[in-house]
Amino acid sequence: MTSDCIFCKIIAGEIPGQFVYQDEQVVAFRDIHPIAPTHILIAPRKHFDSVHHVDASDEPLLGHLFTAARLIAEQEKVSQSGYRLVVNTGAGAGQTVFHIHMHLLAGKPMSDKLV
Amino acid sequence: MTSDCIFCKIIAGEIPGQFVYQDEQVVAFRDIHPIAPTHILIAPRKHFDSVHHVDASDEPLLGHLFTAARLIAEQEKVSQSGYRLVVNTGAGAGQTVFHIHMHLLAGKPMSDKLV
Repeated sequence: MTSDCIFCKIIAGEIPGQFVYQDEQVVAFRDIHPIAPTHILIAPRKHFDSVHHVDASDEPLLGHLFTAARLIAEQEKVSQSGYRLVVNTGAGAGQTVFHIHMHLLAGKPMSDKLV
Repeated sequence: MTSDCIFCKIIAGEIPGQFVYQDEQVVAFRDIHPIAPTHILIAPRKHFDSVHHVDASDEPLLGHLFTAARLIAEQEKVSQSGYRLVVNTGAGAGQTVFHIHMHLLAGKPMSDKLV
Protein backbone atom coordinates (compact mmCIF):
# COMPACT_ATOMS: atom_id res chain seq x y z
CA MET A 1 0.00 0.00 0.00
CA THR A 2 1.11 3.52 -0.81
CA SER A 3 -0.04 5.83 1.94
CA ASP A 4 -1.21 8.70 -0.25
CA CYS A 5 -2.96 6.60 -2.91
CA ILE A 6 -6.74 6.95 -2.94
CA PHE A 7 -7.20 3.53 -4.59
CA CYS A 8 -5.01 1.84 -1.97
CA LYS A 9 -7.26 3.47 0.64
CA ILE A 10 -10.41 2.20 -1.09
CA ILE A 11 -8.89 -1.30 -1.34
CA ALA A 12 -7.96 -1.17 2.37
CA GLY A 13 -11.49 -0.07 3.32
CA GLU A 14 -10.34 3.30 4.62
CA ILE A 15 -12.45 5.13 2.02
CA PRO A 16 -15.80 3.67 0.95
CA GLY A 17 -16.10 2.15 -2.49
CA GLN A 18 -19.07 0.58 -4.23
CA PHE A 19 -17.47 -2.81 -4.81
CA VAL A 20 -18.83 -5.12 -7.47
CA TYR A 21 -16.10 -7.79 -7.41
CA GLN A 22 -13.13 -8.80 -5.27
CA ASP A 23 -10.66 -11.63 -5.28
CA GLU A 24 -7.15 -12.20 -3.96
CA GLN A 25 -5.51 -10.21 -6.74
CA VAL A 26 -7.89 -7.45 -7.81
CA VAL A 27 -10.85 -5.39 -6.70
CA ALA A 28 -13.52 -3.69 -8.81
CA PHE A 29 -15.73 -0.78 -7.84
CA ARG A 30 -18.00 1.69 -9.60
CA ASP A 31 -16.52 4.93 -10.92
CA ILE A 32 -17.92 7.82 -8.89
CA HIS A 33 -18.21 9.89 -12.09
CA PRO A 34 -19.59 7.34 -14.57
CA ILE A 35 -19.46 8.18 -18.27
CA ALA A 36 -21.50 5.13 -19.32
CA PRO A 37 -24.41 3.19 -17.75
CA THR A 38 -21.85 0.61 -16.59
CA HIS A 39 -18.55 2.18 -15.58
CA ILE A 40 -16.43 0.04 -13.29
CA LEU A 41 -12.76 0.36 -12.34
CA ILE A 42 -10.74 -2.83 -11.91
CA ALA A 43 -7.50 -2.41 -9.97
CA PRO A 44 -4.82 -4.78 -8.69
CA ARG A 45 -4.51 -4.87 -4.90
CA LYS A 46 -0.77 -4.38 -5.43
CA HIS A 47 0.16 -0.78 -6.09
CA PHE A 48 1.75 0.19 -9.40
CA ASP A 49 1.71 3.83 -10.42
CA SER A 50 1.03 2.98 -14.07
CA VAL A 51 1.91 0.70 -16.96
CA HIS A 52 5.30 2.49 -16.96
CA HIS A 53 5.99 0.63 -13.72
CA VAL A 54 5.32 -3.01 -14.63
CA ASP A 55 7.66 -5.73 -15.81
CA ALA A 56 7.49 -9.35 -16.96
CA SER A 57 6.98 -10.68 -13.42
CA ASP A 58 3.68 -8.76 -13.25
CA GLU A 59 2.17 -10.32 -16.37
CA PRO A 60 -0.03 -12.96 -14.66
CA LEU A 61 -1.54 -10.28 -12.43
CA LEU A 62 -2.07 -7.86 -15.31
CA GLY A 63 -3.66 -10.61 -17.37
CA HIS A 64 -6.00 -11.28 -14.50
CA LEU A 65 -7.49 -7.82 -15.06
CA PHE A 66 -8.90 -9.19 -18.33
CA THR A 67 -10.37 -12.38 -16.88
CA ALA A 68 -11.84 -10.35 -14.01
CA ALA A 69 -13.32 -7.98 -16.60
CA ARG A 70 -14.88 -10.93 -18.39
CA LEU A 71 -16.46 -12.18 -15.15
CA ILE A 72 -17.70 -8.74 -14.15
CA ALA A 73 -19.19 -8.15 -17.62
CA GLU A 74 -21.12 -11.41 -17.24
CA GLN A 75 -22.24 -10.42 -13.74
CA GLU A 76 -23.36 -6.99 -15.03
CA LYS A 77 -25.12 -8.64 -17.99
CA VAL A 78 -23.19 -6.62 -20.57
CA SER A 79 -21.23 -9.47 -22.14
CA GLN A 80 -23.52 -9.73 -25.12
CA SER A 81 -23.98 -6.02 -25.76
CA GLY A 82 -20.21 -5.48 -25.51
CA TYR A 83 -17.76 -3.59 -23.36
CA ARG A 84 -14.71 -1.40 -23.74
CA LEU A 85 -11.63 -1.81 -21.55
CA VAL A 86 -9.35 1.22 -21.20
CA VAL A 87 -6.10 1.76 -19.31
CA ASN A 88 -4.77 5.32 -19.40
CA THR A 89 -1.04 5.70 -18.82
CA GLY A 90 0.22 9.14 -17.89
CA ALA A 91 -1.56 12.42 -17.28
CA GLY A 92 -1.42 13.27 -20.99
CA ALA A 93 -3.56 10.22 -21.72
CA GLY A 94 -6.11 11.05 -19.05
CA GLN A 95 -4.77 9.06 -16.11
CA THR A 96 -5.93 10.87 -12.97
CA VAL A 97 -5.27 8.27 -10.25
CA PHE A 98 -1.75 6.86 -10.25
CA HIS A 99 -2.63 3.30 -9.29
CA ILE A 100 -3.09 1.09 -12.37
CA HIS A 101 -6.75 0.58 -13.17
CA MET A 102 -8.80 -0.70 -16.07
CA HIS A 103 -12.05 1.06 -16.97
CA LEU A 104 -14.86 -1.31 -17.93
CA LEU A 105 -17.37 0.70 -19.96
CA ALA A 106 -20.66 -0.70 -21.23
CA GLY A 107 -24.39 -0.20 -21.52
CA LYS A 108 -24.53 2.12 -24.50
CA PRO A 109 -23.49 1.98 -28.15
CA MET A 110 -19.85 3.09 -28.25
CA SER A 111 -18.36 5.56 -30.68
CA ASP A 112 -15.08 4.90 -32.47
CA LYS A 113 -13.63 8.05 -30.87
CA LEU A 114 -11.12 6.41 -28.57
CA VAL A 115 -9.03 9.52 -28.05
CA MET B 1 -4.44 -19.71 -36.82
CA THR B 2 -8.01 -19.21 -37.88
CA SER B 3 -8.20 -19.32 -41.65
CA ASP B 4 -10.60 -16.42 -42.13
CA CYS B 5 -9.02 -14.05 -39.58
CA ILE B 6 -7.32 -11.02 -41.10
CA PHE B 7 -5.02 -10.59 -38.09
CA CYS B 8 -3.94 -14.24 -38.24
CA LYS B 9 -3.07 -13.59 -41.90
CA ILE B 10 -1.05 -10.48 -41.02
CA ILE B 11 0.75 -12.42 -38.27
CA ALA B 12 1.49 -15.24 -40.72
CA GLY B 13 2.84 -12.79 -43.31
CA GLU B 14 0.10 -13.55 -45.81
CA ILE B 15 -1.14 -9.96 -45.72
CA PRO B 16 1.37 -7.11 -45.29
CA GLY B 17 1.48 -5.28 -41.99
CA GLN B 18 3.63 -2.37 -40.88
CA PHE B 19 5.18 -4.15 -37.91
CA VAL B 20 6.75 -2.14 -35.10
CA TYR B 21 7.39 -4.98 -32.62
CA GLN B 22 7.37 -8.76 -32.55
CA ASP B 23 8.26 -11.40 -30.01
CA GLU B 24 7.34 -15.03 -29.40
CA GLN B 25 3.94 -14.16 -27.92
CA VAL B 26 2.67 -11.00 -29.60
CA VAL B 27 3.04 -8.83 -32.67
CA ALA B 28 2.36 -5.11 -33.07
CA PHE B 29 1.64 -3.21 -36.25
CA ARG B 30 0.28 0.21 -37.22
CA ASP B 31 -3.47 0.65 -37.60
CA ILE B 32 -4.25 1.29 -41.27
CA HIS B 33 -6.84 3.90 -40.23
CA PRO B 34 -5.05 5.76 -37.42
CA ILE B 35 -7.06 8.01 -35.15
CA ALA B 36 -4.02 9.43 -33.34
CA PRO B 37 -0.45 10.26 -34.42
CA THR B 38 0.63 6.96 -32.83
CA HIS B 39 -1.96 4.21 -33.32
CA ILE B 40 -0.60 0.70 -32.99
CA LEU B 41 -2.42 -2.61 -32.57
CA ILE B 42 -0.87 -5.24 -30.29
CA ALA B 43 -2.20 -8.76 -30.81
CA PRO B 44 -1.32 -12.18 -29.40
CA ARG B 45 -0.06 -14.64 -32.01
CA LYS B 46 -2.58 -17.10 -30.60
CA HIS B 47 -6.09 -16.52 -31.86
CA PHE B 48 -8.86 -15.58 -29.43
CA ASP B 49 -12.01 -14.02 -30.81
CA SER B 50 -12.31 -11.61 -27.89
CA VAL B 51 -12.03 -11.20 -24.13
CA HIS B 52 -15.19 -13.37 -23.97
CA HIS B 53 -12.97 -16.24 -25.01
CA VAL B 54 -10.12 -16.13 -22.48
CA ASP B 55 -9.65 -17.95 -19.19
CA ALA B 56 -7.18 -18.09 -16.32
CA SER B 57 -4.63 -20.07 -18.32
CA ASP B 58 -4.32 -17.14 -20.74
CA GLU B 59 -3.44 -14.56 -18.08
CA PRO B 60 0.36 -14.53 -18.59
CA LEU B 61 -0.11 -13.97 -22.32
CA LEU B 62 -2.74 -11.27 -21.79
CA GLY B 63 -0.51 -9.53 -19.25
CA HIS B 64 2.26 -9.56 -21.81
CA LEU B 65 0.16 -7.21 -23.94
CA PHE B 66 0.80 -4.57 -21.26
CA THR B 67 4.55 -5.10 -20.99
CA ALA B 68 4.78 -5.11 -24.80
CA ALA B 69 2.79 -1.84 -24.80
CA ARG B 70 5.25 -0.36 -22.34
CA LEU B 71 8.21 -1.34 -24.55
CA ILE B 72 6.55 -0.07 -27.72
CA ALA B 73 5.65 3.24 -26.05
CA GLU B 74 9.31 3.68 -25.14
CA GLN B 75 10.38 2.77 -28.66
CA GLU B 76 7.86 5.27 -30.11
CA LYS B 77 9.00 7.93 -27.60
CA VAL B 78 5.50 8.45 -26.20
CA SER B 79 6.11 7.10 -22.69
CA GLN B 80 6.46 10.54 -21.18
CA SER B 81 3.60 12.22 -23.05
CA GLY B 82 1.29 9.31 -22.19
CA TYR B 83 -0.67 6.64 -23.99
CA ARG B 84 -4.10 5.06 -23.88
CA LEU B 85 -4.61 1.30 -24.15
CA VAL B 86 -8.03 0.10 -25.35
CA VAL B 87 -9.49 -3.37 -25.89
CA ASN B 88 -12.97 -3.44 -27.42
CA THR B 89 -15.01 -6.55 -26.74
CA GLY B 90 -18.00 -7.18 -28.96
CA ALA B 91 -19.37 -5.32 -31.95
CA GLY B 92 -21.42 -3.05 -29.67
CA ALA B 93 -18.20 -1.76 -28.12
CA GLY B 94 -16.55 -1.11 -31.48
CA GLN B 95 -14.68 -4.38 -31.99
CA THR B 96 -14.35 -4.82 -35.75
CA VAL B 97 -11.73 -7.59 -36.01
CA PHE B 98 -12.47 -10.67 -33.93
CA HIS B 99 -8.92 -11.46 -32.88
CA ILE B 100 -8.07 -9.88 -29.51
CA HIS B 101 -6.04 -6.71 -29.93
CA MET B 102 -5.01 -3.78 -27.80
CA HIS B 103 -5.00 -0.30 -29.32
CA LEU B 104 -2.03 1.83 -28.24
CA LEU B 105 -2.97 5.46 -28.82
CA ALA B 106 -0.65 8.38 -28.27
CA GLY B 107 0.83 11.56 -29.67
CA LYS B 108 -1.95 14.01 -28.88
CA PRO B 109 -3.70 15.28 -25.76
CA MET B 110 -6.49 12.81 -25.02
CA SER B 111 -10.05 13.69 -24.14
CA ASP B 112 -11.89 12.02 -21.29
CA LYS B 113 -14.50 10.77 -23.76
CA LEU B 114 -13.74 7.10 -23.60
CA VAL B 115 -17.05 5.96 -25.05
